Amino acid sequence: MIRTRLTETFGLDYPIVSAPMAKVAGGRLAAAVSRAGGLGLIGGGYCEVDWIETEFANAGNTAVGCGFITWRLAEAPQVLDAALDHGPRAVFLSFGDPRPFAERIHAAGAALICQVQTLNDARQAVEAGARVIVAQGGEAGGHGANRATLTLVPEVADLLRTGSPETLLLAAGGIADGRGLAAALMLGADGVLVGTRFCLSDEALIPPQFQQAGIAASGDQTVATKVVDIVRGYDWPERFRIRVLDNAFTARWQGDLDGLRADPAQHAAWAEGLAVGDPSVANPVLGEGIGLVNGSAPAAEIMKQMAHEAEALLAGGWDRRKS
Amino acid sequence: MIRTRLTETFGLDYPIVSAPMAKVAGGRLAAAVSRAGGLGLIGGGYCEVDWIETEFANAGNTAVGCGFITWRLAEAPQVLDAALDHGPRAVFLSFGDPRPFAERIHAAGAALICQVQTLNDARQAVEAGARVIVAQGGEAGGHGANRATLTLVPEVADLLRTGSPETLLLAAGGIADGRGLAAALMLGADGVLVGTRFCLSDEALIPPQFQQAGIAASGDQTVATKVVDIVRGYDWPERFRIRVLDNAFTARWQGDLDGLRADPAQHAAWAEGLAVGDPSVANPVLGEGIGLVNGSAPAAEIMKQMAHEAEALLAGGWDRRKS
Repeated sequence: MIRTRLTETFGLDYPIVSAPMAKVAGGRLAAAVSRAGGLGLIGGGYCEVDWIETEFANAGNTAVGCGFITWRLAEAPQVLDAALDHGPRAVFLSFGDPRPFAERIHAAGAALICQVQTLNDARQAVEAGARVIVAQGGEAGGHGANRATLTLVPEVADLLRTGSPETLLLAAGGIADGRGLAAALMLGADGVLVGTRFCLSDEALIPPQFQQAGIAASGDQTVATKVVDIVRGYDWPERFRIRVLDNAFTARWQGDLDGLRADPAQHAAWAEGLAVGDPSVANPVLGEGIGLVNGSAPAAEIMKQMAHEAEALLAGGWDRRKS
Repeated sequence: MIRTRLTETFGLDYPIVSAPMAKVAGGRLAAAVSRAGGLGLIGGGYCEVDWIETEFANAGNTAVGCGFITWRLAEAPQVLDAALDHGPRAVFLSFGDPRPFAERIHAAGAALICQVQTLNDARQAVEAGARVIVAQGGEAGGHGANRATLTLVPEVADLLRTGSPETLLLAAGGIADGRGLAAALMLGADGVLVGTRFCLSDEALIPPQFQQAGIAASGDQTVATKVVDIVRGYDWPERFRIRVLDNAFTARWQGDLDGLRADPAQHAAWAEGLAVGDPSVANPVLGEGIGLVNGSAPAAEIMKQMAHEAEALLAGGWDRRKS
């Protein structure tokens, strides 16, 4: 049993939080993670209220949290109230300044979790009074920035040690098995945020063809791109890109973003690919850790496996002279 | 004392190899690392024979190895013989196909170390009969590719476990302290390759102004770019970029590579910045791990600190509930 400041603070059995993957992490996944002893988060993402309401309902009475894309929440701040009405365990904010939302979240008694991609982001999160900071490397699936998990986590840990020692720290990006969990603990994290691995859970809202494409892929087959946001019409800030499985569509347009912007027929083709679940056109949103995933499983089983593998490593199993 | 397959195979006191940083890792640094109980490598890089001869002389009688940029060695294959004449402990090849050089290296009794950036590179390294494979993430200083260390190391470990279990595995990219070393061991590595941290050693061949700029920098201040190779006139394969400290020069030209190619006066300005050691013009070659480095020290002291910190973490010091 791995005990950390995260497991003690939140009363968890595993130092694992499931990433609030927009539209993929529904109430069923979040509740499965929380019931199994982690902290599950609904992927509120782009702030579509009906979807969020449905997924809180799907979580039933299990205590879960909810995540938002911060710059999108700034355009629809009332959506935060809708989420807070459900008494979420935590509110997770990433990709923008969390400070304007902090007071309402604190007042509602939800734990504020801020995901950061730079040291400056981390300073803002401390100012917002975040209970937990998630240092996210660009190897993560979905949106991210340029830093790698391996260097960002210890550098944020150093910042917190001197500036805000009570703030908990999670590692995100590239953590898909017990090796990544054990490594994150060595880097100074109190736990991990896991996305890609839970995309290959039975509870994830993701087409089976996308899961199959993920199982077949190596980590070399992902790409961080603007292509997918252009076809979806999302106006993401310049510094963020989305990591997805590379395919013929991204290969064609990665070097010609202006051409893609000017060609709405391509946007429609991508949307059609998504509607029918065709990973050769629409890109499954997965991170580099997909190369460590060889099948799908119930979320509870994934957590158990990750924790057992990490426990064995921490107990000396890292020494390959024995194997 | 951390014992691994690497320390046992090479008779080392520390599972640490110093990166063969072109023109920066001279004989003095390589010998200091080897004498202190690691494995030191001379940075033969672009295959300039006179420099390599001088640096083997500077290493004296200490057993060191030598590294090359593989695609450059393919243009000047006789340089390998010059290095092999010194009876190097190891020959380190990165950035190209190692197979054409493997036989001569094996015949000379040197250990072949192949650095890889993808799974396909790793398969080639196995075919070349590498004794050691170094899985390098793009957070490394100097040249690299797209994968992150945190995911590439375990994915290569899985490849080797089934395909070549006797091949040793090192992690490279972003490892600048004991936390990175301990994390690398959790990921399945037998040791680490360290570059950036040794750039801030007393023995590195690097201008003091560049070291000062590094000490002041956060990991957020590095950039992976083609700019520096364009101004130096090096024809690197498309998939590799060089990670350096960002400055006004890279900020100006990162988005206009064609403009930079067409402007030789800029190339001369950069070269002049390098000649006078001005980090506001010429970019110090450093990786994301620079944010974890707060000063310079003798190489032997760096290794001792890294190992002690890692040992404490492996012994349970990762548990922050106690601190």
